[in-house]
Amino acid sequence: MVRSSATKSKSPKKYFTKGTTPKPFPKLPFVPFFFNSSFYIFLEFKTHLGLQQYRPITQKQNKGLLLPPPSATSESESAAAACGASTFRPPTPAVLRLHLLITSALNYCYYNLMSYQQHLTLQHHPLVHPLLFHTSNMAYTYSPTTTFFPKHHLRSTTINCTSSSPPPTTVTTTNNRQPVPLLPFSAKYVPFNSITDESYSLDEIIYRSSSGGLLDVQHDMNALKQFDGKYWRTLFDSRVGRATWPYGSGVWSKKEWVLPEIDNDDIISCFEGNSNLFWAERYGKENLSGMNDLWVKHCGISHTGSFKDLGMTVLVSQVNRLRKMNKPLVGVGCASTGDTSAALSAYCAAAGIPSIVFLPANKISMAQLVQPIANGAFVLSMDTDFDGCMKLIREITSELPIYLANSLNSLRLEGQKTAAIEILQQFNWEVPDWVIIPGGNLGNIYAFYKGFKMCEELGLVDRIPRLVCAQAANANPLYLNYKSGWKNFTPVKATTTFASAIQIGDPVSIDRAVYALKNSDGIVEEATEEELMDEMAAADATGMFVCPHTGVALVALRKLRERGVIGRSDRTVVVSTAHGLKFSQAKIDYHSKAIEGMGCKFANPPVEVKAEYSAVMDVLTKYLSKVS
Amino acid sequence: MVRSSATKSKSPKKYFTKGTTPKPFPKLPFVPFFFNSSFYIFLEFKTHLGLQQYRPITQKQNKGLLLPPPSATSESESAAAACGASTFRPPTPAVLRLHLLITSALNYCYYNLMSYQQHLTLQHHPLVHPLLFHTSNMAYTYSPTTTFFPKHHLRSTTINCTSSSPPPTTVTTTNNRQPVPLLPFSAKYVPFNSITDESYSLDEIIYRSSSGGLLDVQHDMNALKQFDGKYWRTLFDSRVGRATWPYGSGVWSKKEWVLPEIDNDDIISCFEGNSNLFWAERYGKENLSGMNDLWVKHCGISHTGSFKDLGMTVLVSQVNRLRKMNKPLVGVGCASTGDTSAALSAYCAAAGIPSIVFLPANKISMAQLVQPIANGAFVLSMDTDFDGCMKLIREITSELPIYLANSLNSLRLEGQKTAAIEILQQFNWEVPDWVIIPGGNLGNIYAFYKGFKMCEELGLVDRIPRLVCAQAANANPLYLNYKSGWKNFTPVKATTTFASAIQIGDPVSIDRAVYALKNSDGIVEEATEEELMDEMAAADATGMFVCPHTGVALVALRKLRERGVIGRSDRTVVVSTAHGLKFSQAKIDYHSKAIEGMGCKFANPPVEVKAEYSAVMDVLTKYLSKVS
Repeated sequence: MVRSSATKSKSPKKYFTKGTTPKPFPKLPFVPFFFNSSFYIFLEFKTHLGLQQYRPITQKQNKGLLLPPPSATSESESAAAACGASTFRPPTPAVLRLHLLITSALNYCYYNLMSYQQHLTLQHHPLVHPLLFHTSNMAYTYSPTTTFFPKHHLRSTTINCTSSSPPPTTVTTTNNRQPVPLLPFSAKYVPFNSITDESYSLDEIIYRSSSGGLLDVQHDMNALKQFDGKYWRTLFDSRVGRATWPYGSGVWSKKEWVLPEIDNDDIISCFEGNSNLFWAERYGKENLSGMNDLWVKHCGISHTGSFKDLGMTVLVSQVNRLRKMNKPLVGVGCASTGDTSAALSAYCAAAGIPSIVFLPANKISMAQLVQPIANGAFVLSMDTDFDGCMKLIREITSELPIYLANSLNSLRLEGQKTAAIEILQQFNWEVPDWVIIPGGNLGNIYAFYKGFKMCEELGLVDRIPRLVCAQAANANPLYLNYKSGWKNFTPVKATTTFASAIQIGDPVSIDRAVYALKNSDGIVEEATEEELMDEMAAADATGMFVCPHTGVALVALRKLRERGVIGRSDRTVVVSTAHGLKFSQAKIDYHSKAIEGMGCKFANPPVEVKAEYSAVMDVLTKYLSKVS
Repeated sequence: MVRSSATKSKSPKKYFTKGTTPKPFPKLPFVPFFFNSSFYIFLEFKTHLGLQQYRPITQKQNKGLLLPPPSATSESESAAAACGASTFRPPTPAVLRLHLLITSALNYCYYNLMSYQQHLTLQHHPLVHPLLFHTSNMAYTYSPTTTFFPKHHLRSTTINCTSSSPPPTTVTTTNNRQPVPLLPFSAKYVPFNSITDESYSLDEIIYRSSSGGLLDVQHDMNALKQFDGKYWRTLFDSRVGRATWPYGSGVWSKKEWVLPEIDNDDIISCFEGNSNLFWAERYGKENLSGMNDLWVKHCGISHTGSFKDLGMTVLVSQVNRLRKMNKPLVGVGCASTGDTSAALSAYCAAAGIPSIVFLPANKISMAQLVQPIANGAFVLSMDTDFDGCMKLIREITSELPIYLANSLNSLRLEGQKTAAIEILQQFNWEVPDWVIIPGGNLGNIYAFYKGFKMCEELGLVDRIPRLVCAQAANANPLYLNYKSGWKNFTPVKATTTFASAIQIGDPVSIDRAVYALKNSDGIVEEATEEELMDEMAAADATGMFVCPHTGVALVALRKLRERGVIGRSDRTVVVSTAHGLKFSQAKIDYHSKAIEGMGCKFANPPVEVKAEYSAVMDVLTKYLSKVS
């Protein structure tokens, strides 16, 4: 990567961490950048109150390339011009001349195009595309005046940018006649799975449709379809794990498909996503009679220890945006005993937004509360049950300027769906045969469906996997509904399960889940307490440390394998939703055989031995002869 | 990325997950690959019992390019030849002709060169280097017979590979006279910081030098110096977060600097490293009077929840290699109550290697044990203290075929040092001013020093940060030693601290730590129990969920800030070593104000309120008026 004296300044930059408002660009001399023999640049024109703000940006450093003022026409003027946060109104038509030093091939800049499609973007890629982009009221073309890749892979060139207004509806370049996108990316709320004209801006504070139904975030698919599947695959691949804010996040690396219109600086991210897709080689071989293509997606190895981070970064980022827009939002509230309140309070704490958690007194242990408490949430403990808390927070949030982060919130699903895209990406865009997801409130299975479906619709893949929803037998309303052939859904009274996060008898996202399963040739399975705990223990013994919900999903897998539904060599992904460290007590109880009525057949308690060389030697020799 | 019908095969591939022995290459037709207008290929010749096994590999897919049999000389023969796991003994001299389809610029293959430098590697990069590589008994050159980058960026070419024996000691290509590396990467054990000829192969089972001192893994720096800093930066950057086994791991993305000679398939990895470098923006601003360039490296958000994963992947991988070499190793043992036994047992479980943990009976809770127990370790509980366990396991491992994974093991430091390299990388190879690391047994501070120092020596950066070791006041032997001006070191009797992993009075790596601190203009600080718990709570309130050790490091930072040693705008990194979820009980006790003699000034207990609309409204209105 480039290193110059300018890189030694002390001000925090946009590594993968929180954003700030970008500073004005410093005045810089005209410095060519060398990214190992490859070099990329884009120019971003922000449309802002009718003024065009221009700032040249390189991929790796928010500084550097010189953009001349619009009137500059000579190379010398260009080279001398200051590079700053200038604003100007481009004349129509106008000619901009940009003096660039070009090194060699620039795949990267092609990849990064669309992250700035909202703005006017000039993109320079001599090998791949002469490019032309536009905003809603302008179009720019450029034509390189020199050839590229001279002997030393370094040469200056001039780019002529001509604005025109209004823009043509389709523009082709002279070189390759490739149409250029003209629709900006956008998304809005619409009623879930219903044919109406009803829709709401994502900047409205709204939780349900006019008829009281679920909402869904609907993207402008025509805008996204301006680019083909290969483009999106390449774009997403180019961002994996990078330090460039905010794209190092697994969620925000898909920003155009999540919240396309949010400003990068409004995003609250803690490097969520990019979780390990673990090849459960030993588990598959030893526990599922030689299943050789089994993978566990460890969504719980994350900032707050559960997959909820994926959705919460989206919700809190949007709230952050709304607050900056001076919408009346003092804080964010939820009624949750577990991962939701943990994720909400952590992201709010990072953002400096007050979080409020409602909980039933005497029914929640401090252990369940420790994350929101530690993250500074205002935790209200009240003498009622969980439903009472939920009712109260709904009433309160309709009166007070508190955003409700409950589980029907459709913004969160936009983040969660990126886990599905990430799975495809980690398989190099090959589609697995099965994806098994634990289900309680049932938002997540729809989120996975939505992620897979978008990839199919936009041509990244050509099919979607079959989905399996796995429920605890103690909280199995979807399973019963599936067994009845999707006849009338009836809530159940959920009883205690070790898989506590899915102990839900009347799931809010039931319609979403049924839709997802019907459209993915899906299946629902269930697991008893003993089954799920045994399976969790069996998985741990092969190097994982999974939560009981993962145990539920693994039981579903075992049952479908035994029935021959899932084949031995089917590529199968089991979604693990929380970190095992959140369930230490359940594991302790299991391995201590302290669970009433449970055999705990895989318990692995410590072996007591006298602290003498010979005694230890005896025990160990026996053990080693058994295992070697 | 490329998608072809061949990619739909069901056999598991090398995504970021566990390795297997590579299968023979399937017979494939001659298919050109298109990686978005860029395409990379390398050929790997393995030297194996005198036979040369050849298999062509593309970066993204272990299949594809056709390598003709050695006798094939015509294009048509090449195109028709099978691509398989053939073995052949190359004639000396011999001519290989390889028919390739080349698309466009190939930065990537340049990056990936050295990962295969151990083997004979032919590398094809028309723009950057005509290449020449060799093994110890052969050298190959190639000369492209056509020019590249024709109009459609696609053209066939023939590469002539000529073996010669013995190889020249320095070879230059005809095109650019660039010397080509001839030294293979290697590493060995040497006594730590001592000038002797004593050294041991990493394939020996040895823990201490002949004089009973510490060992250090010493890399052949001359071999590494064959490449400049820019090369290494580019190589490491090219691997960040990628799915290519094993380079997606933060540790193994630096494989050449860790265990250069291990076969990729012997590596046991769980996607360790690549942890978030969190910009502690709110914490710095609000708790350290506007410190604006403060970062927390979250090493504990990982597979087993602590930084120990970084070292354990190296140790267990090497043990795996030794077992495959038929060294007498049935299992791996340790005496540890915490993160070490957790990481050891998880990695062993993933590898299918028995792990053995020795622990004092009645002094360890099941909570401390739950990870090794769940990961199937053979846990021996004995009626002695921790020192007794350590003594016994040393005796036992000298008799039984059990590898000792204790904390003086120098292999583990090779993995841990990658966290330092990763920090530089995340700052785009800018060097922070300060890095603050909690210290108990003191191996980690040396590992960080070593990582930074290697980056300096190999030209990736031009200086190293100043290191700060932070100790709990209840276990502060290094602090006392530092205060005495590094006079004679005296162990202390450590007393209980919430920072339990650093509760060590007689650290095994004391010499390493003193060396690291002296050579980095380092400082040692200490934190009392109340200080460290308050600081942990303050950090949590800004969106983190840190362990008490991180609290210790943050106290050190605060003290150095208050004394003016660390400046307000100094770029400072605090290393967080474990996941806060491992310390839920300590956090519960703090926020319940249940810690005797501690004020718990940042405790944030739940607020009780009647479950009535008006009562809740009152409480919330007051709260909101306070925070808004």
